[in-house]
Amino acid sequence: MTVRTRTPTAGPVALRDIQAPVAPALARVSDEMWRIVAVESALFNGVNDHLMLMKGKMVRPTLLLLASEALQTPEPRAASYAAVVELIHLATLIHDDAVDHSVLRRGMPTINALFTHQVAVIAGDFLYSRAVQELVRLGDLEPLRVFAKASNELTVGEMRQLGSLDALAFSEEDYEFLIRAKTAALFSAATEVGALCGAVEARPALARYGAYLGMAFQVVDDLLDYTEAAETVGKPTGLDLREHKVTLPLIAALRRMSRAARREVDDLFSAPEPADEQIARVIRIVREEGGLDYARQRGETYAAQAEEALAGLPATPARRALHDTLTYVMGRRS
Amino acid sequence: MTVRTRTPTAGPVALRDIQAPVAPALARVSDEMWRIVAVESALFNGVNDHLMLMKGKMVRPTLLLLASEALQTPEPRAASYAAVVELIHLATLIHDDAVDHSVLRRGMPTINALFTHQVAVIAGDFLYSRAVQELVRLGDLEPLRVFAKASNELTVGEMRQLGSLDALAFSEEDYEFLIRAKTAALFSAATEVGALCGAVEARPALARYGAYLGMAFQVVDDLLDYTEAAETVGKPTGLDLREHKVTLPLIAALRRMSRAARREVDDLFSAPEPADEQIARVIRIVREEGGLDYARQRGETYAAQAEEALAGLPATPARRALHDTLTYVMGRRS
Repeated sequence: MTVRTRTPTAGPVALRDIQAPVAPALARVSDEMWRIVAVESALFNGVNDHLMLMKGKMVRPTLLLLASEALQTPEPRAASYAAVVELIHLATLIHDDAVDHSVLRRGMPTINALFTHQVAVIAGDFLYSRAVQELVRLGDLEPLRVFAKASNELTVGEMRQLGSLDALAFSEEDYEFLIRAKTAALFSAATEVGALCGAVEARPALARYGAYLGMAFQVVDDLLDYTEAAETVGKPTGLDLREHKVTLPLIAALRRMSRAARREVDDLFSAPEPADEQIARVIRIVREEGGLDYARQRGETYAAQAEEALAGLPATPARRALHDTLTYVMGRRS
Repeated sequence: MTVRTRTPTAGPVALRDIQAPVAPALARVSDEMWRIVAVESALFNGVNDHLMLMKGKMVRPTLLLLASEALQTPEPRAASYAAVVELIHLATLIHDDAVDHSVLRRGMPTINALFTHQVAVIAGDFLYSRAVQELVRLGDLEPLRVFAKASNELTVGEMRQLGSLDALAFSEEDYEFLIRAKTAALFSAATEVGALCGAVEARPALARYGAYLGMAFQVVDDLLDYTEAAETVGKPTGLDLREHKVTLPLIAALRRMSRAARREVDDLFSAPEPADEQIARVIRIVREEGGLDYARQRGETYAAQAEEALAGLPATPARRALHDTLTYVMGRRS
């Protein structure tokens, strides 16, 4: 079973297509990241080396740069802000992995696995405070305001997740709150700060686009956890279920489930270490009860709302790329 | 054995004496802290309630307010900055306790003990990002610059401590770097930001005063770990040794130790859980080799350097209180 893909454009979209309009600026972002995190400490540099390997697809910096080019008047400082958004994202990943005791991320060892849990907590704090220092250096309070708000929303989302005592009572509304805080807030901050760097008239539209794109992105991410094989996403399928994390496919399926099926789910959620077959059975139940289709549909709706937010923008290469990003996100396999 | 006290003024100084010149502003700081951390989350509010109990003596807010009154022209916004410095301090304590798996702090359970380790990591992130949001709201980049730098130094200090493989090779220079980063940086930020709120001409002097005061404060703190009984400091004596933490008294004593004494120390540092008698023996060795006297002397020197930094300031009640703070810090029992 794979996620069905509806592409509003001709063929599939690759990340490099989306990144093409901002390729020169994006090439500078890694250098900017290194500059911001430079520190005299052997241990930190070991951590920093590993972080640079972790940085992956640079989705948020790409979005920030595309937003800054939306009106074809990008400012050079956008590359520094793009580095900051990725550093904030990495700081969050490191603390998430530490909190969850995760050992793998994108097929690579996490900071807490490679070093220690202690190093992970401090390294996250280091990255975040360096990001704030860079924002101060850049001298503009408005991007700082946007990023500080998003960072705080991230923690509120995390805390909400930790505080839910009965995982299976997690409602669709709770889920929406969670993905808005955990994913959409930083996506929206990326496009909003991008707008502040050369497309300020489009600020509300680009912030809205980023928020809906982020919602769609997270829904697809949660779907992939149900549908994709370990090789593709760099983590074993059904990891969320294994960790008793409730996402949209299960929330939707729970509403339609037979008593017998519900019992299977309850059993999995009361097993401290669910067996592989148990996970496979619940994945099948969720699919049969339409949980995957429902989540897919919600993702498509968010993508459509993101598309609407772009409506008033002129037809620039960056706008085209922002449109294609929706196709890319809805069609991604990893 | 108690720490000897040399008081440059007449009698002992109580915290309330120091706080007297800023008592009205200090009374507003708790309200400011509550305003800044307010959030709609049952779990967070449980954490926040506990944090307000943890806030303790409010040393850093007091220093910030005293600095803002050094020229008798304090600005009302100083109370908000005072709340911010205490929140940054609390965020640091929470992550420190989480990293160290500490269960008690000032005789009260830590956040990681009362809730979970996960909650502690996220709660620290929450407080820090709220502090940054408040700094943005206040609209002045300069205090943000000062606090962001201090926060980053804190993480660099922590990391340096985690990265030292051979605890007993920790030099006096390493120790100075560590306490500068872990304690003096935020003390100095407090007095520097205080200066920015009404005593800007005295900014360099007050920043320097805060840095030396912070060094003295940490040296005394590390001495108290050797000399005071559990009831006074709210933690058992010799906790640093128990956790294989090397501070100035031991560093100084190591330089003069006999082979037999050194063997005792080595044994303690290779014991995963040192016995109480082992700790008591090493405490005695450190005292006999002059480690406590040496550390005391270094503390006095830092206090004298802090005093020198005040030299150019006019004789205001706040300056008097800053002077008395040195007496208080050097004479404190907890």
